[in-house]
Amino acid sequence: MTLRLHYAPDNASLCVRLALEELGLVYSTALVDRRAQGQRTPAYLALNPHAMIPVLETEDGPIFETAAILLWLADRHRERVALMPAPDASERGMALAWLFWLSNTLHPALRMLFYGGEHIAPEMVFALHERTAQRTLGMLDRLEAAAPALGGWLGAAQPSALDCYLAPMLRWCALYPESGTGWFELTRWPTLRAAVERFEARASVTAAIQAEGLGARPFTDPRPPRPPEGHAT
Amino acid sequence: MTLRLHYAPDNASLCVRLALEELGLVYSTALVDRRAQGQRTPAYLALNPHAMIPVLETEDGPIFETAAILLWLADRHRERVALMPAPDASERGMALAWLFWLSNTLHPALRMLFYGGEHIAPEMVFALHERTAQRTLGMLDRLEAAAPALGGWLGAAQPSALDCYLAPMLRWCALYPESGTGWFELTRWPTLRAAVERFEARASVTAAIQAEGLGARPFTDPRPPRPPEGHAT
Repeated sequence: MTLRLHYAPDNASLCVRLALEELGLVYSTALVDRRAQGQRTPAYLALNPHAMIPVLETEDGPIFETAAILLWLADRHRERVALMPAPDASERGMALAWLFWLSNTLHPALRMLFYGGEHIAPEMVFALHERTAQRTLGMLDRLEAAAPALGGWLGAAQPSALDCYLAPMLRWCALYPESGTGWFELTRWPTLRAAVERFEARASVTAAIQAEGLGARPFTDPRPPRPPEGHAT
Repeated sequence: MTLRLHYAPDNASLCVRLALEELGLVYSTALVDRRAQGQRTPAYLALNPHAMIPVLETEDGPIFETAAILLWLADRHRERVALMPAPDASERGMALAWLFWLSNTLHPALRMLFYGGEHIAPEMVFALHERTAQRTLGMLDRLEAAAPALGGWLGAAQPSALDCYLAPMLRWCALYPESGTGWFELTRWPTLRAAVERFEARASVTAAIQAEGLGARPFTDPRPPRPPEGHAT
């Protein structure tokens, strides 16, 4: 079967779209209508019981979790492009460590920044946001410091799964929540900025810009999305 | 080189110890003295800049992030025991999805329950705890519902990487924080309870009990650890 990406514009599905484009795979998309809570319909919950976007339907069944999909795609299609070190490569452990860290540390912090109301009562969201923004600065500082040792797996000529995951997250920090992006200024992290700037010139990003209305420079100069279909929030 | 696990008793390193034991690998351990903030020393930060336990030192260098280590071990030593489906197996995507979910959804929720003060001011920790406990109940309900479809990869005769990760997390829910475990009762999830009960009879768990002072039934009847060296908190 053709791969089928369940997506909403400028959602975590963007990371998977970038990987699909980098791999040059044929895929179709299915819009999840967030305004209608499309991720909570019985049909979607049968694909992902956690009601999160994205899901990738594959010949092996549906796969959820952004980083799981990225890793699965990288391992299944490494004859096309190496998005991750091979399972027997010496750099595999290091790349897995940072992939899981993006998934379990940086991404959850962003969810707390963007959707604080899921975590605490409305009157305490500001306090949660403030502390989380500070923690997130520290996270990005550590990634910036580690980036040179990540060798060919962050910011290289051929983008990796780490690039596909990181670049959209840095974009979202500049856009969400609309009321609270003041803590974030990409120039604080010159290595990370250079990585997403290099990525931005790829054909994969051009394809994503067109499909999801991301604007001309989605990572170095993020603007609110104007998608041809659906809604980002 | 021999594998070397940097650990603290009853910390996330326990998940990795269980995997090392299931694989029958030779390894040494290095105690991280949490009371002395051993995870923040320059020597430890050189292994893991995030100051988190565990790290596994390998022939390919240090690897951090519990789930990254579990996956790396599973893929490198699958000729011994299959802790995860092989990269080309049809169940790989599903197993990766749940491994990342344990790592980026369940585990961060537990960190918010156990270390709320990292996330918000002390006077708001109770409110954060209350909401997070409710969210965590929902997470475990979804895992319970999905467990039968996980086939041989949760609660099977041969424990998997998912078992090695889940069983300690269920243990900690019954123990931490000492002031706030009332939300958790394992009997609510009979499939998960059966899975950890089956795991509990393994020689790998016996070895971990002895090494870390976990008590006779560490998953079905958790008691505060009495480790022969070091401190859990």
